Amino acid sequence: MQFRRNILFAATALCALASQPAMAEEGMWTFDGFPAERVRDQYGWAPDQAWLDAVRNSAVRLTGGCSASFVSSDGLILTNHHCIASCLFDNSTDARDYLADGFTAKEREEELTCPGQQAEVVTSISDVTGDVMGAIGELSGAALTKARDAKIAELESAGCPDTETTRCQVVTLFGGGQYKLYTYRKYSDVRLAWAPEDRAATFGGDPDNFNFPRYSLDASFLRAYENGQPVATPDHLKWNPRAPQEGEITFVVGNPGSTSRLWTDSQLAFEREVRLPVTVATLSELRGRLISAMDESDEKTREGRDMLGGVENSLKVYIGRTAALNDPAFTGKLVEAQSDLRAKSAGNAEIGDPWSTVDEAINSYRTLYYPLRFTQPSGDLYGYAQTLVFAAQERSKPNSERLPGYTDSALPLTEKRLLDERPIYSWLDTLTMEWSLSKAREYLGVDDPDSQLLLGKESPEQLAERLVNGTRLADPAVRQALWDGGLEAVETSDDPMIQYALKLAKRQRELKALSDAQYSGPLAVAGIRLADARFAAYGDSVYPDATFTLRISYGRVKGWTERGNEVPILTTLGGTFERATGNAPFDVASAFAANEANIDKTKTYDFVTTNDIIGGNSGSPVIDRAGTVIGAAFDGNIHSLGGNYGYDGTRNRTVAVSTHAIQEALETIYPAPSLVAELAGQ
Amino acid sequence: MQFRRNILFAATALCALASQPAMAEEGMWTFDGFPAERVRDQYGWAPDQAWLDAVRNSAVRLTGGCSASFVSSDGLILTNHHCIASCLFDNSTDARDYLADGFTAKEREEELTCPGQQAEVVTSISDVTGDVMGAIGELSGAALTKARDAKIAELESAGCPDTETTRCQVVTLFGGGQYKLYTYRKYSDVRLAWAPEDRAATFGGDPDNFNFPRYSLDASFLRAYENGQPVATPDHLKWNPRAPQEGEITFVVGNPGSTSRLWTDSQLAFEREVRLPVTVATLSELRGRLISAMDESDEKTREGRDMLGGVENSLKVYIGRTAALNDPAFTGKLVEAQSDLRAKSAGNAEIGDPWSTVDEAINSYRTLYYPLRFTQPSGDLYGYAQTLVFAAQERSKPNSERLPGYTDSALPLTEKRLLDERPIYSWLDTLTMEWSLSKAREYLGVDDPDSQLLLGKESPEQLAERLVNGTRLADPAVRQALWDGGLEAVETSDDPMIQYALKLAKRQRELKALSDAQYSGPLAVAGIRLADARFAAYGDSVYPDATFTLRISYGRVKGWTERGNEVPILTTLGGTFERATGNAPFDVASAFAANEANIDKTKTYDFVTTNDIIGGNSGSPVIDRAGTVIGAAFDGNIHSLGGNYGYDGTRNRTVAVSTHAIQEALETIYPAPSLVAELAGQ
Repeated sequence: MQFRRNILFAATALCALASQPAMAEEGMWTFDGFPAERVRDQYGWAPDQAWLDAVRNSAVRLTGGCSASFVSSDGLILTNHHCIASCLFDNSTDARDYLADGFTAKEREEELTCPGQQAEVVTSISDVTGDVMGAIGELSGAALTKARDAKIAELESAGCPDTETTRCQVVTLFGGGQYKLYTYRKYSDVRLAWAPEDRAATFGGDPDNFNFPRYSLDASFLRAYENGQPVATPDHLKWNPRAPQEGEITFVVGNPGSTSRLWTDSQLAFEREVRLPVTVATLSELRGRLISAMDESDEKTREGRDMLGGVENSLKVYIGRTAALNDPAFTGKLVEAQSDLRAKSAGNAEIGDPWSTVDEAINSYRTLYYPLRFTQPSGDLYGYAQTLVFAAQERSKPNSERLPGYTDSALPLTEKRLLDERPIYSWLDTLTMEWSLSKAREYLGVDDPDSQLLLGKESPEQLAERLVNGTRLADPAVRQALWDGGLEAVETSDDPMIQYALKLAKRQRELKALSDAQYSGPLAVAGIRLADARFAAYGDSVYPDATFTLRISYGRVKGWTERGNEVPILTTLGGTFERATGNAPFDVASAFAANEANIDKTKTYDFVTTNDIIGGNSGSPVIDRAGTVIGAAFDGNIHSLGGNYGYDGTRNRTVAVSTHAIQEALETIYPAPSLVAELAGQ
Repeated sequence: MQFRRNILFAATALCALASQPAMAEEGMWTFDGFPAERVRDQYGWAPDQAWLDAVRNSAVRLTGGCSASFVSSDGLILTNHHCIASCLFDNSTDARDYLADGFTAKEREEELTCPGQQAEVVTSISDVTGDVMGAIGELSGAALTKARDAKIAELESAGCPDTETTRCQVVTLFGGGQYKLYTYRKYSDVRLAWAPEDRAATFGGDPDNFNFPRYSLDASFLRAYENGQPVATPDHLKWNPRAPQEGEITFVVGNPGSTSRLWTDSQLAFEREVRLPVTVATLSELRGRLISAMDESDEKTREGRDMLGGVENSLKVYIGRTAALNDPAFTGKLVEAQSDLRAKSAGNAEIGDPWSTVDEAINSYRTLYYPLRFTQPSGDLYGYAQTLVFAAQERSKPNSERLPGYTDSALPLTEKRLLDERPIYSWLDTLTMEWSLSKAREYLGVDDPDSQLLLGKESPEQLAERLVNGTRLADPAVRQALWDGGLEAVETSDDPMIQYALKLAKRQRELKALSDAQYSGPLAVAGIRLADARFAAYGDSVYPDATFTLRISYGRVKGWTERGNEVPILTTLGGTFERATGNAPFDVASAFAANEANIDKTKTYDFVTTNDIIGGNSGSPVIDRAGTVIGAAFDGNIHSLGGNYGYDGTRNRTVAVSTHAIQEALETIYPAPSLVAELAGQ
């Protein structure tokens, strides 16, 4: 269950630098850098350009942080249940719990709007490295980031004059070695057609998350709309409800969110010594606060479920990464790869010593990190206020001078996320804000000026309660009026959350400027040199670190050896009944129990492949040699958690739910005859 | 606020190996190894034997995990408030909150009995190294630990035939290099005479804990009783209610709990890579669970306070230790000290290579650690059941074959802790047990046999609720009956908690046997060699790692430099009003507020010294050159948290509450005229 909406955006703040020479089935390849020869060498066959084009045109990015694919000509989209759990949650009330019960639209008119969700399909990729490098020139520090960001804003605006149906994004690859302009066809009206019960998708809950054998129906169907009608999608993957075969080649096409595969020593040290410890400790406390608070009533149990799921998922990721970086055998390989690159680069004057530049940047970041992290309180309502404040301030500047999230090309999605209607539970916002403010005081120290800016004389508990109870931002109309009113409306607002966000914004900008000058700027310079070093050492056998842009990974259906035991390639639907204990989270979903006699228990449920994926790939189609979809990737095994830093082909596995099982669910468990027909192309 | 009752006993499971040559004011010295010459060199004066004897005879160990001292001839004991918070808590009800309100006995008859508490004074120390080494001979693994423990049990029994008033303990020093028999006069009836409001002791709460400047009245008075009468204590420290002077020499006499000052590389790696990460993550979650659960009602706020305080204190310790071990400058010194010892030992055939023995033991422990840790569920009721089961099983064996906690010399305190009446809050026990069982499943894995042993088909939530609701062990009479009934009563009991503890005991014994064979046994052998290496390299300039036995540390009243700023040596009572925000935990205690006009605000409140102490030293008297008491140590500063691994004299400080402030409190804030007179020797 990877890359759900993550409350810890700060967790992805360290940008990835670059990648190392790919081994075996390692690699999250761009479509313009697909290693066809290598695949042919390994498999005796490789996809041709037509195959790649067809697949690329069917691949969907979901702005909620997931991947997906079109699977019918009427805009039907296959993705994971956990990618749309927030949509079910946002459409639920105490009387109507879609998340618990699942949802099947009897007809298209019933399909549920998903707040904040947008579907995007890549339509072109062009190289703009020369333009961006030209703007950067010999600049450094904050001047560099400013010039770079201005050029990017300009390229994005010029590339997509129509912001209603297109979106342009300049993507930084190889930590600054390449810049590419991605153009997307976007669909900002996304609706939910089908989802199973939460328990069917999350059978085994947190204990089974990132584990295999697994029994999870982590699948759902969305549909893209435009002008109130389903969009026509002649480019889509053919639905193929069959069992996977051991050893067959598989492709996973989606948007891995972020990797850090060739960080330098000092970046890895910072991760291990600073970022992971504070992240695990604070998120663990939030988890505990949520568990007890949800225990108070059935309403709170329902209302907190989506957030708790996200927190537990993130926590498992960070605990897994901690374990990976505390495993000398694993980190030994990372150190070795880096030594190899340094050795191959030795004496190359054009490359110089970017490693020292990174070391210095990381040293500065050690001082900036806590202030940067903790001057951003958590909570949806504070998030709205912060967006309103920054958007009002940035929109009053020329496009080229704005912060990245507020350029003309970025604003439409920012606006949609801000204004889409969704429920806010004030106890949950209070809890989250209290927690983040108390952790800020703990890590910054009581007497730190940033602590005092955050709290004044109030306690975290008092302040959170005053702001959450006093704000009117839960009402979308209030947010709309402040958005429309712009800077004057925001600055004169007496809403306490807006006032608070205004107060913090000044300091947040100061810290961003310091970080640009001392951290991001130097890293950008080093990134160019490190990318040069890699290209010189390894040619085109390298792939860029993940950037939540479209990639393709190849691999095969294959188990692995766990403590001497062979893990099988798949589970069957029948296995879920054997694993069930009757007690949450090992209780079978009620529709499974009710239909047990009719379910074909021999059908494949979930399966594993050697594809190299990471959070953000959730919902990616698993595609066979024929280009048909045979599954939806939804997870990695426990060994995949170190995959952020390096791929271990002997153990790192993708976990997917098979089309075999989804078809059985559509026919027998959560019947949707119209979808069955649509998927069959009827 | 160090070494409160710690729910994580597993945290001290790794036994310390030995110590390194002491630098400057470093050192927790045994009374028979006091470095008088070194002190004379530094201060131009050192205490003589009469001074040392007088101090030793006044020093008190509290079995709750703290230190203290006699300060009158009528058994009056000075210690910290946080050392007796559990006593206040156990004597409280919803109608009468002694922990919040504080307590002053108007007359001795009103003094409150403290459940589980015992006061102990060392009466003799004798060297039994030869006896124990003779028993160990050439044995190894589990045979070694068995022979060693049998000899220790025999020595303790022979040393203290009267277990009513004496207690014998063989203490392992230098990780096995020395064994000493400590004989104690014990007082098992300890009562509370005076304690301020909780807020006076914990002003600044968790945020200010382990920090300085500090404004905490972390002091209280107990009294030792025997046969219903206060005991006569002609040996006691003279009370000296004065301000400390910058630079003056100070001695802290108490019982540091445990240090790990010269662990080998592999022990430190295990700590950093395994034990600290799992401890911080799981305790953080418990903290969160407690915070939200306590928020539900005023009763729960009161009932959970003592445990939350303990959890937050432990967590701050472990987070501080994590930071220390993630600080390359700090760990560099540890590595250097170890390299020096190895270099000095090179070629010494009698020492050989104990480092490799430790490496192998730690490798085995990496496999055993999670099972050992997680097959011990948390919760007071489970703790009672486990004690009853083990005591019944062990008491049916000869003394020399029993587990260490159940020998004739250890049983009286075990029995007292089990049978003393104290309140049990079932929601708190359920919460704790649920948490520990769910963490066991998380870390061991759902399919692990130990997980399945712990849970069967039940969920952690169901099992905890069933056991806590079903057991009758909250009733001391039920515990007494099972204790008296012995093995047959325990084995035939239908109490579900007893049944559960019986089931787990078998596996716990198996794991202990594995640990003895693969970990404790080899470490004991290596410990002897490492101690030999240290004695050979550094002579008597080394002190043993802390073992919760009596030590003396010397130092001086001195501030330090924090990020370029000089931290003053002391705070004044007036400072607390300046720091107050009116909001918890920065709200002044109500008696402070009510008496503000009468309080002498210029009097010294808390102060810092360079004494080298650690958790367990809480409550230790701070003694001046004249042998009079001028404070009670209650904490270290934030830099003291790395003190578990090494002492940094430039920054590591002891924090004490002054007798100056305590006297003012006794006169003006929480008036206790009879104690004022008693302390004055009137």
